[in-house]
Formats: sequence, C-alpha cells, structure tokens
Amino acid sequence: MRFRVHVSLKPSVLDPQGQTICSSLRSHGHGSIAAVRQGKFFDIDVDPAGGADPKAEVEQIAREVLTNPVIEEFRLEQL
Amino acid sequence: MRFRVHVSLKPSVLDPQGQTICSSLRSHGHGSIAAVRQGKFFDIDVDPAGGADPKAEVEQIAREVLTNPVIEEFRLEQL
Repeated sequence: MRFRVHVSLKPSVLDPQGQTICSSLRSHGHGSIAAVRQGKFFDIDVDPAGGADPKAEVEQIAREVLTNPVIEEFRLEQL
Repeated sequence: MRFRVHVSLKPSVLDPQGQTICSSLRSHGHGSIAAVRQGKFFDIDVDPAGGADPKAEVEQIAREVLTNPVIEEFRLEQL
C-alpha cells in the first residue's frame, strides 16, 4: 500500500527558493510565469500485514515526523 | 493557471535519504513501513494572458530546467 505525503510551506510563509526560481525563469524568456513555490513529497510503502490502520499510521508520521507544524502543512494521498 | 511538477528520482536510482528516513521510522516503532522515497515538487502559476500554451511552457520548463534527465523524471499535473 503506497501513500504520497506532500509537504509544503504554509501560504503565509515566504519561499525564497521558489522566488529565485521564478525570477530566474522570467529572466530566461518565460515572462508568463507569475509565481513558483517549492515543496517536497515522500512516497511511503506500508506493509498492510503490519497491523494498525496504514493510512492512520502514515498520517501520524506525516504530522509528527515529516512536517514542521510552525511553517509547513501536509496533504496525504493514497497512490 | 496553476501546475504542479513532481520531480522524483528514477526507480533505478538509489535514494539514500529515503532509505535513512525509512530505517529511522522502523527503529522508532513504525515496523510496517517497507520503503520511503523522497521527491520534490514545484507549484507554478502561469499568467494565461502570456501568449503561448501554458501547459506546453511548463512542460518545457520541467524538462529543461527542473529535472536532471540522467537521474530524475517528472510528472506534470494541472491544479
């Protein structure tokens, strides 16, 4: 069973890396690019024979380990 | 118009960072986690008044700028 956890900066948090990519693209002829924000994802394979509810376990991992709740948020997707 | 470009290592390429996260999770009580692979994504806002086909432009950016074709692959999604 595979899940994808998307971790992104909260909308209120500045993303200097994304801004740099955006201005670099604009100065290289991609003038229609309005904004870029970067994030990361984790593809997690869970052994369904492992006992507990796999989705609940991945959600716990996403919340407690993969995300910094001060500046980041996550979204969980089953693949 | 917003697109998300997912960039991940090709399946044949080792992902030591993901392996470290996986073994760390397993040693912290998440024994049912079988594998973890990490990737990144870019949320790109395109001004649709910019002229060219926005999807084709983002695909070109993904292929030529955001992805290292030797070890990475990308997937494009319209949000």
